[in-house]
Amino acid sequence: MPTALIVLAAGQGSRMQSDLPKVLHRVAHAPLLIHALRGAEGLSPERTVIVAGHGGDAVEAAARDHDEGLVVVRQEEQLGTGHAVLRARAALEGFSGDVIVLYGDTPFIRAETLEAMLDARRNGADIVVLGFEAEDPGRYGRLVVEGDRLDRIVEARDATAEELGVRLCNSGVMCADAGLMFDLLDRVGRDNAAGEYYLTDLPGLARADGLTTRVVTCPEAETMGVNTRTDLAMAEAAFQAATRLEVMATGATLTAPDTVFFAHDTAIGRDVTIEPHVIFGPGVTVESGATIRAFSHLEGCHVSDACVIGPYARLRPGAELDRGVRVGNFVEVKAATVQEGAKINHLSYVGDAEVGAGANIGAGTITCNYDGVFKHRTVIGAGAFIGSNTALVAPVTVGAGAMTGSGSVVTMDVPDGALALGRAKQVNKDGFAARLMARLRAARARKTN
Amino acid sequence: MPTALIVLAAGQGSRMQSDLPKVLHRVAHAPLLIHALRGAEGLSPERTVIVAGHGGDAVEAAARDHDEGLVVVRQEEQLGTGHAVLRARAALEGFSGDVIVLYGDTPFIRAETLEAMLDARRNGADIVVLGFEAEDPGRYGRLVVEGDRLDRIVEARDATAEELGVRLCNSGVMCADAGLMFDLLDRVGRDNAAGEYYLTDLPGLARADGLTTRVVTCPEAETMGVNTRTDLAMAEAAFQAATRLEVMATGATLTAPDTVFFAHDTAIGRDVTIEPHVIFGPGVTVESGATIRAFSHLEGCHVSDACVIGPYARLRPGAELDRGVRVGNFVEVKAATVQEGAKINHLSYVGDAEVGAGANIGAGTITCNYDGVFKHRTVIGAGAFIGSNTALVAPVTVGAGAMTGSGSVVTMDVPDGALALGRAKQVNKDGFAARLMARLRAARARKTN
Amino acid sequence: MPTALIVLAAGQGSRMQSDLPKVLHRVAHAPLLIHALRGAEGLSPERTVIVAGHGGDAVEAAARDHDEGLVVVRQEEQLGTGHAVLRARAALEGFSGDVIVLYGDTPFIRAETLEAMLDARRNGADIVVLGFEAEDPGRYGRLVVEGDRLDRIVEARDATAEELGVRLCNSGVMCADAGLMFDLLDRVGRDNAAGEYYLTDLPGLARADGLTTRVVTCPEAETMGVNTRTDLAMAEAAFQAATRLEVMATGATLTAPDTVFFAHDTAIGRDVTIEPHVIFGPGVTVESGATIRAFSHLEGCHVSDACVIGPYARLRPGAELDRGVRVGNFVEVKAATVQEGAKINHLSYVGDAEVGAGANIGAGTITCNYDGVFKHRTVIGAGAFIGSNTALVAPVTVGAGAMTGSGSVVTMDVPDGALALGRAKQVNKDGFAARLMARLRAARARKTN
Repeated sequence: MPTALIVLAAGQGSRMQSDLPKVLHRVAHAPLLIHALRGAEGLSPERTVIVAGHGGDAVEAAARDHDEGLVVVRQEEQLGTGHAVLRARAALEGFSGDVIVLYGDTPFIRAETLEAMLDARRNGADIVVLGFEAEDPGRYGRLVVEGDRLDRIVEARDATAEELGVRLCNSGVMCADAGLMFDLLDRVGRDNAAGEYYLTDLPGLARADGLTTRVVTCPEAETMGVNTRTDLAMAEAAFQAATRLEVMATGATLTAPDTVFFAHDTAIGRDVTIEPHVIFGPGVTVESGATIRAFSHLEGCHVSDACVIGPYARLRPGAELDRGVRVGNFVEVKAATVQEGAKINHLSYVGDAEVGAGANIGAGTITCNYDGVFKHRTVIGAGAFIGSNTALVAPVTVGAGAMTGSGSVVTMDVPDGALALGRAKQVNKDGFAARLMARLRAARARKTN
Repeated sequence: MPTALIVLAAGQGSRMQSDLPKVLHRVAHAPLLIHALRGAEGLSPERTVIVAGHGGDAVEAAARDHDEGLVVVRQEEQLGTGHAVLRARAALEGFSGDVIVLYGDTPFIRAETLEAMLDARRNGADIVVLGFEAEDPGRYGRLVVEGDRLDRIVEARDATAEELGVRLCNSGVMCADAGLMFDLLDRVGRDNAAGEYYLTDLPGLARADGLTTRVVTCPEAETMGVNTRTDLAMAEAAFQAATRLEVMATGATLTAPDTVFFAHDTAIGRDVTIEPHVIFGPGVTVESGATIRAFSHLEGCHVSDACVIGPYARLRPGAELDRGVRVGNFVEVKAATVQEGAKINHLSYVGDAEVGAGANIGAGTITCNYDGVFKHRTVIGAGAFIGSNTALVAPVTVGAGAMTGSGSVVTMDVPDGALALGRAKQVNKDGFAARLMARLRAARARKTN
Repeated sequence: MPTALIVLAAGQGSRMQSDLPKVLHRVAHAPLLIHALRGAEGLSPERTVIVAGHGGDAVEAAARDHDEGLVVVRQEEQLGTGHAVLRARAALEGFSGDVIVLYGDTPFIRAETLEAMLDARRNGADIVVLGFEAEDPGRYGRLVVEGDRLDRIVEARDATAEELGVRLCNSGVMCADAGLMFDLLDRVGRDNAAGEYYLTDLPGLARADGLTTRVVTCPEAETMGVNTRTDLAMAEAAFQAATRLEVMATGATLTAPDTVFFAHDTAIGRDVTIEPHVIFGPGVTVESGATIRAFSHLEGCHVSDACVIGPYARLRPGAELDRGVRVGNFVEVKAATVQEGAKINHLSYVGDAEVGAGANIGAGTITCNYDGVFKHRTVIGAGAFIGSNTALVAPVTVGAGAMTGSGSVVTMDVPDGALALGRAKQVNKDGFAARLMARLRAARARKTN
């Protein structure tokens, strides 16, 4: 049976106090909307329709950026969840099968959970509602059941004392045959306090028609929704906690897991050691046996076996480190290939560069890659020795086994095995410092008198 | 009715194991004493008297530094809270109204709570005591009440089993008419195990005189006192937790709230993003829409709209960043005005400087602002391009649209649109590096044989 | 009565998912095995025998590195704890006294606990087993007692419902007369599901012989064992939590204790302030009154009174700082002695150096200590002033009170009081920058058209 998804992503999220649409706020560097889609992608849906509203252009751009095949429709007026789902009807014209309604601000529903809902459909339920046992049911809608059948969904504000005692709550996620869902929605009215069309009216209508409605449950954590910045921080914390456990289970040491932050797509190998206070942006792969020392920051980079990174190393997008490379403190590497065993240990900026195997980049080395308009490349040969405080003015090539003198400005290519010097000769002026200091101190004395 | 405060700040705090007086230990970069005063300042007290003792000079200096109008009196001998309050009598000569007794090591009592105490006074209570329901009453004094009247305060060590069951505890904060308080204190004796005069004897004396004593309550967290370094860390944690929630409620994203530390006066705008591991020292304002990336450290600075700071950026006092400024990794900015859209992206020190709009400061740039005695200013014009590894020897001006060559030492002013070069010409010595390396390796081989 | 230790350290630790033997994984920079030995060292054991197996060579090396006197025996086949203990028999030939069996993956058993076990031996118990009241007994072996006598140890899988209700659990640590232990072990069979020889069979055999077996208890936290990377992270967290409390109790301020990580041997003085996000590697001593600012990383160094370190300072092994030294942001100091009051405030690398009292090292200073093969020393005299962006090419000496010009490369010694200049003269090319920028922008325009 083919499956389609309708993802509601139109809400303003006014409690976020933000100009950014709520579903574009990020957890682990990916928008909430993309997290919501990720779980459902495990079902290989035939069509996915996103209902956008507030900040619709930005939502549409983010959705397209994730997957060109997504359909984005607009809900200009926000008249309730039922109204939102109906916006997707035209985009599902000709689709025959089950549709699942998801929420762009609910990032953690797992594929397994959605599969269980589809299973319930296959086993004869006309409508399947996803519920959870709430620790503190509070303002959640309650699912009143008889056996495994859903009798009705009761909003907390309309609930009797007895109904308020029910801990089984409504996640809002719902599954039904597409045709049935839209037919029932046509019959939903807006005769309620908010004047909105509610998706939650469907089970009642279905039951009145003699149809069966079942509840599938999942852990409460999975249904976590984001309405405030505090919720967002809690969602981030939940993602990080789960990811840390996964990374440790596959054989990495996290000295202080709570101080390490992963992106949604970080890949960490076995016997990798990650010291405290390390941050992974998107697009990082760390191979087995590497060590990421404290206070390091990695984005869009590849770290091979036996590399030692940090402390205080920053690897930016395009840093590709071969095995055994060493990047030390206060070093920034960007768009650079660094071959086996090369060392960039101290206070350097290596950008738009190729560094050969076994090369040693001295402290304070800067690749001058930008002329104010264009970026240029620096090539450093295998076994080259770049003296401390060298400025490499790109485009420039330092040959294999070549050296540069400390403090040199290198503007021309250096042949293999050659030494490049570009610095002034030292002159000592005897007694000058002593006289100067005496003069300055006298000036200070006059000033403060 | 005018109000006066008496803040007890004389204790040694021996459990702090410190040479610093206890009330000067800091939470969120402000001394505990100042936190204690802050809450009470909401009442606009007519007079505030601080009773100092241990480290009295330092306490007096800190108090005066906060507010010149504070009166500091000394309690040379520490003979109990009653004795301490009496030290303030002379300083309140001529004052007629209510006095509230506070504690310099109890930083979180809110103005609303003190208002409630004053309200109780206005409604006929002669003495008002601030109590709290303790999670674990332990060694706290118990408030034995009849209805809303306080019968007596019982120290834990003197309490019966029944009294120990009382969870309403004494915070020590007390409010009464100034004249009454001092009159009653004259009648307090020191016939107890410690030989001290206790403020807590007042309610009993008052009741014996037929006066009424009421209890006002507040959450236990508000009465948190600091006696050890662990208490201090817990007070800091409480302050930070509350501040993080406030900052998020106003619309900032904190990716990992537990790793971000604010000062008592940090101001954060809407739609500001703060990544993990960021520290705010005192005096920081961040405008709406700015991003503070990981591992950044800000003190005494102003960050405007659309700025991106960090990772690993350090903004020191006097850094004033206009909109859209970018300060990148391993960069220190101090006492510098940076105009719109200027960039200081890598490994630089910019101090005592003015940077014009749209200027680009290359990696490894250093403003040489200190000659060993005086500090000098560097001025960089709009749209200037400072080449990598440039040393700008202040006082010096680089004109608008001017450039400096990479690796230059700039000691003279550079006219608008000019290029300044201050570096030696490069010379390549063919084969030199190969021969040198061979020689050095041979030397090593000889050494290790 | 002499004491011997047998430390079981042969297990593979397959749940660690690691190539490193389990007992060599580290907590606070020391292997678990060394932590296990540390507690027991308080007993001054006459002999200590470590039973190694998986990764035996690495385990033996680590043990020897800790204490040359340790005896390491091998258990090639892992046939159970009883079998492992018997491997130690030959190494205890001629030893007469009590033997305690410990575990290399159980790092936190305290000397006081082991003393209590020896006390029980002295008071007539033939075998003493260390037990603990488990919060959640789960799969732990249960200790079934009659009064203070141990009746038997029941594995969870063999336990009756009643026995599963017992919360007193077996830590595995056991103490007995050496001769008795080995004699009883000779009678232990392997007629069980795993086909292994179990040390836990000893109490039953002893009781059958009419001997007495007693239980000594300790807190559950002390018996924490490490089987997974998550366990390792929890052991690290437990160590850090305890250490932070100790450091605060002795009078240091930790602004945010949870973000500070100590090594097993860190020594922190009174009235030391440690800001958030600080890491101590092994071998660090910080004297009273020093301040370690945020984002600092210290290893193998000594920080004296009144020093201020950081933020973002990295002190590496051999950094010896005299009183009042200041090391600022993005500064790395390695194998260097820094005399009283010297300052290295910004973006510098000082390695293999001596810095005299009161010297000022300008921003961007680099000691060029490495020629590709050898390391050389830099000596900076008292009161010297190193200009910003100076490269000091070692071996080199800058005399007392001498100066170096900003941006200089210093290759020759500088006499006391002299000024060293090694930089090119500045030339301004009028209008050059304006013309260049115009040309580059035109080129960009052509490219993008």
